[in-house]
Amino acid sequence: MNVSIIGATGYGGAELVRILQAHPDVAIYSVHSSSRHGTPMIDSYPHMQTVADLLLEDIDVDILQREVDLVFLATPSGVSAKLAPKLLARGLKVIDLSGDFRLKDRQMYKSWYGKEAGDYEWLKKAVYGLTEWVEEDLQQVDFIANPGCYPTATLLGLAPLVKSELIDPSSIIVDAKSGVSGAGRGISETSHFSETNESTKIYKVNAHQHTPEIEQMLVSWNDAIQPITFSTHLVPMTRGIMATIYVDAMKETNLDEIYNLYMESYKDVYFVRVREKGVFPSTKEVAGSNFCDLGLAYDERTQRITIVSVIDNLVKGAAGQAVQNMNKMLGMDEKTGLAFVPIYP
Amino acid sequence: MNVSIIGATGYGGAELVRILQAHPDVAIYSVHSSSRHGTPMIDSYPHMQTVADLLLEDIDVDILQREVDLVFLATPSGVSAKLAPKLLARGLKVIDLSGDFRLKDRQMYKSWYGKEAGDYEWLKKAVYGLTEWVEEDLQQVDFIANPGCYPTATLLGLAPLVKSELIDPSSIIVDAKSGVSGAGRGISETSHFSETNESTKIYKVNAHQHTPEIEQMLVSWNDAIQPITFSTHLVPMTRGIMATIYVDAMKETNLDEIYNLYMESYKDVYFVRVREKGVFPSTKEVAGSNFCDLGLAYDERTQRITIVSVIDNLVKGAAGQAVQNMNKMLGMDEKTGLAFVPIYP
Amino acid sequence: MNVSIIGATGYGGAELVRILQAHPDVAIYSVHSSSRHGTPMIDSYPHMQTVADLLLEDIDVDILQREVDLVFLATPSGVSAKLAPKLLARGLKVIDLSGDFRLKDRQMYKSWYGKEAGDYEWLKKAVYGLTEWVEEDLQQVDFIANPGCYPTATLLGLAPLVKSELIDPSSIIVDAKSGVSGAGRGISETSHFSETNESTKIYKVNAHQHTPEIEQMLVSWNDAIQPITFSTHLVPMTRGIMATIYVDAMKETNLDEIYNLYMESYKDVYFVRVREKGVFPSTKEVAGSNFCDLGLAYDERTQRITIVSVIDNLVKGAAGQAVQNMNKMLGMDEKTGLAFVPIYP
Amino acid sequence: MNVSIIGATGYGGAELVRILQAHPDVAIYSVHSSSRHGTPMIDSYPHMQTVADLLLEDIDVDILQREVDLVFLATPSGVSAKLAPKLLARGLKVIDLSGDFRLKDRQMYKSWYGKEAGDYEWLKKAVYGLTEWVEEDLQQVDFIANPGCYPTATLLGLAPLVKSELIDPSSIIVDAKSGVSGAGRGISETSHFSETNESTKIYKVNAHQHTPEIEQMLVSWNDAIQPITFSTHLVPMTRGIMATIYVDAMKETNLDEIYNLYMESYKDVYFVRVREKGVFPSTKEVAGSNFCDLGLAYDERTQRITIVSVIDNLVKGAAGQAVQNMNKMLGMDEKTGLAFVPIYP
Repeated sequence: MNVSIIGATGYGGAELVRILQAHPDVAIYSVHSSSRHGTPMIDSYPHMQTVADLLLEDIDVDILQREVDLVFLATPSGVSAKLAPKLLARGLKVIDLSGDFRLKDRQMYKSWYGKEAGDYEWLKKAVYGLTEWVEEDLQQVDFIANPGCYPTATLLGLAPLVKSELIDPSSIIVDAKSGVSGAGRGISETSHFSETNESTKIYKVNAHQHTPEIEQMLVSWNDAIQPITFSTHLVPMTRGIMATIYVDAMKETNLDEIYNLYMESYKDVYFVRVREKGVFPSTKEVAGSNFCDLGLAYDERTQRITIVSVIDNLVKGAAGQAVQNMNKMLGMDEKTGLAFVPIYP
Repeated sequence: MNVSIIGATGYGGAELVRILQAHPDVAIYSVHSSSRHGTPMIDSYPHMQTVADLLLEDIDVDILQREVDLVFLATPSGVSAKLAPKLLARGLKVIDLSGDFRLKDRQMYKSWYGKEAGDYEWLKKAVYGLTEWVEEDLQQVDFIANPGCYPTATLLGLAPLVKSELIDPSSIIVDAKSGVSGAGRGISETSHFSETNESTKIYKVNAHQHTPEIEQMLVSWNDAIQPITFSTHLVPMTRGIMATIYVDAMKETNLDEIYNLYMESYKDVYFVRVREKGVFPSTKEVAGSNFCDLGLAYDERTQRITIVSVIDNLVKGAAGQAVQNMNKMLGMDEKTGLAFVPIYP
Repeated sequence: MNVSIIGATGYGGAELVRILQAHPDVAIYSVHSSSRHGTPMIDSYPHMQTVADLLLEDIDVDILQREVDLVFLATPSGVSAKLAPKLLARGLKVIDLSGDFRLKDRQMYKSWYGKEAGDYEWLKKAVYGLTEWVEEDLQQVDFIANPGCYPTATLLGLAPLVKSELIDPSSIIVDAKSGVSGAGRGISETSHFSETNESTKIYKVNAHQHTPEIEQMLVSWNDAIQPITFSTHLVPMTRGIMATIYVDAMKETNLDEIYNLYMESYKDVYFVRVREKGVFPSTKEVAGSNFCDLGLAYDERTQRITIVSVIDNLVKGAAGQAVQNMNKMLGMDEKTGLAFVPIYP
Repeated sequence: MNVSIIGATGYGGAELVRILQAHPDVAIYSVHSSSRHGTPMIDSYPHMQTVADLLLEDIDVDILQREVDLVFLATPSGVSAKLAPKLLARGLKVIDLSGDFRLKDRQMYKSWYGKEAGDYEWLKKAVYGLTEWVEEDLQQVDFIANPGCYPTATLLGLAPLVKSELIDPSSIIVDAKSGVSGAGRGISETSHFSETNESTKIYKVNAHQHTPEIEQMLVSWNDAIQPITFSTHLVPMTRGIMATIYVDAMKETNLDEIYNLYMESYKDVYFVRVREKGVFPSTKEVAGSNFCDLGLAYDERTQRITIVSVIDNLVKGAAGQAVQNMNKMLGMDEKTGLAFVPIYP
């Protein structure tokens, strides 16, 4: 099978190259960049010398149509909205890592992203690719809107509870902490080492564009769910997201009940690992891997449940989940090329 | 004025040395360590060479009684409980940086600390030294229980709201993030660089010993306050605490009203800086300083208030606040020796 | 093929597990720990949950002899000296990651390590496994002394020059910078986050035990080589070594000549990547990979050559090179299971 | 005394504000920025709220002439060259933190900086302000070229040896490691957190513009000194420089002799601290302070001397040394406002 990556010079694109280079059943046919086509990938990423020595190319839809089975769009918001329909129209399978086709409500997209949403027809067809909870048969799907990093950690952490009757639907608070790579390779004061090192920041308070994406999915699972509080922090590390999630229990419960609910939900799910009662994952424990690790707590003093969910934002939160979706779309085991041990320490 | 520091080889003690060495009106008479007395301070802290060239001594209560005005206890929990009464009995003023005399309920101390609490009589006399909210005239006070780092950030962030009628008293959630120096200089896997760097962890979930300290103060301000959810995270930085605090508004409100409430509370308070509406502090913006900076948000979608509170855990969260208390106990301006610009970047 | 790892709870052992778990042609038969046998690997390394769910076992030489093809010793100095002969005597192939069998001169071992060296007979048989420069046919070799992290970076950087007549043999200075994981998982003040973060340190000045290992190899290549200056620094990162190497040119030369010398030496060598003239690698560009990247400079003002050599200390500097050696000992392509893209960023 | 800071929004300027705000005998009269004048300092640096609440102003030479005693130029190379003469012509004392007036040879400036050097007449008058080794009476000096960060660490480390007859004058190698703040607040891929964290880089190999500045001073001390090798590395920390310096001994020597040479040179020098034999400073041990700490080694195997020199690049390497120079120019004790304990940890 051949695949192409458009937007290969961003961190998401580079991570796709890293993962796909080691994939046993898929080859990278081409990598593309609108700003740097004609230059070798190693000019942008010297670490790929020898092992992924590719030339960045301009996009030729005819060639893609003829040669490849699936295209990854690792392009910024606004770009995918225009590009995806062109590729889909040629019969190509597309996995879009941007936010352009995640929100079904075009008005909501516009109000959170400040841009025009993607085409209505394609928007309807896009399947939201939170792999573990996709209901469609992905082998029949041509177009995936790959989830954002924060929504992946949050939704995998909340799914079993939200689908239960256990919680107060207006009580969800997500306090998320992210490494700096989530902001991409673009330079800004926010990503400046001296400004970010030895510091913890909060940003986009009550205004992060991943909020409606999370809520849309939660409501699809449980239509009683009310707007959530979603806070995003920047911590001085490169990779990793931790979402600490707080919800009020609606009725009397205990840790055993909650733990069993999660074990039941995730017992056959390879990439979600539920920790033993009383044990909590750190972001380092999933670094470089496609795992989402969960820890659970219940506080009898407050009748409040705490869920801790960690992912590598560039893997399960972006490129890894995209490859997991690709595996299923192309009829392979979802683990193919993804079942590696996290990098530790 | 002369002061002594007992427990000078921990981070809290060393920070006291740093601050007091630059204090214009107070001299460090002696520094003490039970394990390293007889050795020079610079064997433990080479950075003090020349500028704070002190000899660690054993404790001689007679000499302290005769020569010094005030003693800082930067000793671990359990040690202060025994030491403070001996010094107080000699008429010395004491500021205890440990948790031993913070909880008025000795049973509660025992259940959260797993040790016997300090003597009941002295416990009653100890004033909880959250300087900005102390009601006693500190010049008349001989014994201060200096607040913990997390409680300082949390309580300064919550005080105006908790004292108002604005919030649901059972809705308080504190998601706190701390640098590693809060765990002290003792070695453990938790403080191992390779285990902690590039990682965010959660620890002591629903079980941190600072929880009852926070609740005791909140209830003293507003007896409707219910148990809180208090979560502590370790982020890969040395100094700094951010407490992100969530509370439900009880009645309709807006950011202006909340902002005005905080400005009113803190308008004459030097060491608490309230940021403009829509602006939030990072931990780096208070590094090395005695400031507590606050940012405020209100989300109309959820009727939830977010307060962001940052401090340097070793300064306002320990040694700095102790010196601020000392200033007031000794009849000086609270800012003396403390009004320095944070270290940035 | 089956392999076993003894000393699996250190960082070197854990990295062997990570790499071997993804190896297509080798299975981990067993993992061993003297201190934690009987406990699951995930108690020591929760990140291995599901993906490398092994039980730590005690060592049973009979079983190893019967079931496995090769044993990795990731044990501390002193332990390997005793263990390796027992395994070798049973006909097992052994790769020892410790320093016990690297120095042919037992007296030198004793004076730098402060311990008794390994048995003389086995010492003679041990092949120093700097894979790219091993002269023996590794398929015929049973016993490898796997090089240290610093020697790997240094020797791969120096080999072409030292084998030439180009340099002053008494002029070699190696200024090496290492991440903290090189010190292992043991806790100490040196590895304490708050002591190490935001700091650069020098340690074991003129006294690092890797010095004689480097010199032994250099002299074997060019017997005119004199003692070197070898300095080791700790920088606040987890993984990575950079060796900045300075040598005086003996006769007139230029960057082209030096570059061609290196390209000639390494043109068919997969895991050594020579950068273009004027381009220098960073440690991040080899993170998580088995590559050693080199950059070259010549300064006409001083007639001095600078070589920059970077590796991941846990991969090419330990577990990765060990697997590369294993591949060759077992008759496989040296790249098998190792040709992955570095983790970036 | 009143002083003004031009270029106050860079890190050097901000550090001047931090230090001068706490200076007992000098007031900041005004702060200036060409790009942000008219805005409050706290828009650029929120951490200064309350404690250094200044308005950035445009430059009015008439007002400066009338109101202030001394002006700091924390402006980029090229800007100082034009600005300093205008201020000096008005009789103002000037301390220039840029490189514009450090090199006496204008041609050399041009070839390393790629710009026109400052005016010849003023260049002659500028005193190179490596405070500890200035021969002029600074109270008679109006114009200081404040040394660069690398030259400060290197020259203080080399001075005693270079002034002796002990070393081979063609053998000097300086391997310098710097934190990222040395690159300033400007944004670039080099200062991007995700590119720099968990990485060590080398840059400007044999081409750093501080090279001729170092050599000029060395030659002024000992005209036998030949061109040096000077290498600059970026390590993942914000503040701090370590220069590891290697020189060949010319004749037989030993550590005692070298140590005594340094103690003799620096015995009355407050801001240079020589560590005991066998002890070496880390960059953290001078963080936030004006100290330069030195460690010394001699290797009998190679007859090579190693000097380790550490500073805080923004303090002794920039703003701190500038204030030290100011103190002397204005007739005060050089320590005034500078004798604070380093921030540790």
